[in-house]
Amino acid sequence: MTAAPGRSGVVALLTDFGVQDDFVGLLHAVILSVNPALRIVDLCHHVPPGNVRAGAFLLWHDFQLLPAGSVVAAVVDPGVGSDRALLAADVENRLLVAPDNGLIAPLLEGKKPVRVHRLENREWSRPRPSTTFHGRDWIAPAAAQLASGAALSQAGPAVDRWETVAIAPLEREGGVVGEVLWVDRFGNLVTNLSAADAERRALEIGGTPLRRVATFVEADEGETVWLIGSRGPVEIVCNGASASRALGLGLGAHIRLVAGAT
Amino acid sequence: MTAAPGRSGVVALLTDFGVQDDFVGLLHAVILSVNPALRIVDLCHHVPPGNVRAGAFLLWHDFQLLPAGSVVAAVVDPGVGSDRALLAADVENRLLVAPDNGLIAPLLEGKKPVRVHRLENREWSRPRPSTTFHGRDWIAPAAAQLASGAALSQAGPAVDRWETVAIAPLEREGGVVGEVLWVDRFGNLVTNLSAADAERRALEIGGTPLRRVATFVEADEGETVWLIGSRGPVEIVCNGASASRALGLGLGAHIRLVAGAT
Amino acid sequence: MTAAPGRSGVVALLTDFGVQDDFVGLLHAVILSVNPALRIVDLCHHVPPGNVRAGAFLLWHDFQLLPAGSVVAAVVDPGVGSDRALLAADVENRLLVAPDNGLIAPLLEGKKPVRVHRLENREWSRPRPSTTFHGRDWIAPAAAQLASGAALSQAGPAVDRWETVAIAPLEREGGVVGEVLWVDRFGNLVTNLSAADAERRALEIGGTPLRRVATFVEADEGETVWLIGSRGPVEIVCNGASASRALGLGLGAHIRLVAGAT
Repeated sequence: MTAAPGRSGVVALLTDFGVQDDFVGLLHAVILSVNPALRIVDLCHHVPPGNVRAGAFLLWHDFQLLPAGSVVAAVVDPGVGSDRALLAADVENRLLVAPDNGLIAPLLEGKKPVRVHRLENREWSRPRPSTTFHGRDWIAPAAAQLASGAALSQAGPAVDRWETVAIAPLEREGGVVGEVLWVDRFGNLVTNLSAADAERRALEIGGTPLRRVATFVEADEGETVWLIGSRGPVEIVCNGASASRALGLGLGAHIRLVAGAT
Repeated sequence: MTAAPGRSGVVALLTDFGVQDDFVGLLHAVILSVNPALRIVDLCHHVPPGNVRAGAFLLWHDFQLLPAGSVVAAVVDPGVGSDRALLAADVENRLLVAPDNGLIAPLLEGKKPVRVHRLENREWSRPRPSTTFHGRDWIAPAAAQLASGAALSQAGPAVDRWETVAIAPLEREGGVVGEVLWVDRFGNLVTNLSAADAERRALEIGGTPLRRVATFVEADEGETVWLIGSRGPVEIVCNGASASRALGLGLGAHIRLVAGAT
Repeated sequence: MTAAPGRSGVVALLTDFGVQDDFVGLLHAVILSVNPALRIVDLCHHVPPGNVRAGAFLLWHDFQLLPAGSVVAAVVDPGVGSDRALLAADVENRLLVAPDNGLIAPLLEGKKPVRVHRLENREWSRPRPSTTFHGRDWIAPAAAQLASGAALSQAGPAVDRWETVAIAPLEREGGVVGEVLWVDRFGNLVTNLSAADAERRALEIGGTPLRRVATFVEADEGETVWLIGSRGPVEIVCNGASASRALGLGLGAHIRLVAGAT
């Protein structure tokens, strides 16, 4: 494969489509119809349906592991068919196409240079786009165009505002309050608490402190502990079981850090 | 990648194998063993097991979104190991390999030119083909050969008859009776009723008419409505919930269109 | 794609990660970050979590269907974060990267030539590898290096011992005792009993003999029978239903072959 200059030829997908249907297969078909030499990475298709915050968190992390010059097509889009806009962006040499609903906002924060355009180019969209599947009709073909070397400015007019969602932990009197933003299939609770947040503080669940370990194997069988997870932030895990079930906590649950030795 | 003349280098898969096992992975392995430069699209692996009608419906739709010159390997094959034949076909510049059980029949209908051959070439099949996994031993390697530029006529003798399944709605006294041919993971009921069928008619479920909307966001929370879905035919959806569960209807359910304003 | 000499450019993945999360997507991202021209086959991601025996069985079979010169990244790794080593191996012109926990041992057995090295090259691993996700930080990037043409000897020092797991059936007084090593999504019980084991013997479940058939369609509706499955070994299947449920048997169940006509 000879990729276009500044492009890796890779299109990555992150959606809430699941894999029961042909939705994801059709994104692949549409992308390869634009350019059969592109290659496609399925980052995740199991964002909880319509959960923009969870999708934004995953995207914020996964984005940085893609090859430079890659394009992400991100579709968590509960407002499909409304008048919400679509965006195409260039952030630190990776590109994104997504609905303007906050999905890409956390990863734009504090990065430079960031260029964001509205996606309006009807020559990129599929003919007669549907009102219910913009992922197939707008986002995937635009991602394929960008991955094939099209300029971001061709997408549509530059914009300097977009919808935001906040996924950072909150400073509260007496501590930091984090949130569970992903629950993986093992029941591990992935939070937005950074390693830096967790230094010099104790992690509490409902007033009970949790022990910190460096790796899974340090926890006793069935013990619930916390560690710095592979994504970077704090994860709460239970050795040999689901921490989510053990603690009765899921997506959106609050986790508190208080002053004290870890 | 340099694709063979008239070929895109893309092989698309549509099966009822699910993704719990290595069945799909082995199709990929076999295809790339024939030609490691091919690229593979997983259209859908969750056709309900053995449901040729549902598979035929999905294939009929998805086929047209693939790049011209692509090859589809379709495996919904409850008769594997019996004496049912295998087919290879060329339809409007896309190719197909599938069992002769009706799976590809709907998409052949009314198309020109259509060329259909029996797949019998033992030089294409894997050595010592099994009796239980023709997808791996016959269909996938034949698809890879065709995608690499082999002529359709090499597959085996041309045929002018094949098994059929009908997926069109039925004209009945006083209306049109459609059928639910796919239920997606959101519980949306995808029917075989075309937009043209639905014009100038009212859609009824058990005698109760359903409101038509243009897009999801027009429906009230929890309201069940119908719209022209992204695949083309009529879909019955419930805003924020599963229409399948709300109505107690699933695959094979009948949907009636009667005279009256929509 | 121009693959490196002796390499197919294909990296195959076999893990127990499931597909709910972004774990598999990140392996893809990391592999293409090393070399965006590689292509990736997902053999199976549903090995039962931490079940090294089931993973070893699948890998033993699937390995041989990959193109010559391919590399497998295998991650079933309950000991991640402990001091277990990582291995890179070359077996009959296919390469493997995996934890040293027996996962690759069955397929090394009796093969020549086999070269095994410890994987220790810090220039291949991701910067600051985590303690919990060696698949992403060590195994995937090493597989990508090997698939791109790096020499096995660069991985680390050669070794001549590794952890083993035995997946062969046991000879017992009066017969051969096999084991169910995979249960597919249809409930078919895949055993480690070879066709040769089964010749001239009767297969018994709890003292009751089972009929042998050549293919699914020979069994009566609802009848439980056995056949030589598509993977090679004996499978116990139930026509139109789950043999696992019909017999109340799952992974690890023992299956007995006794003297007598089959």
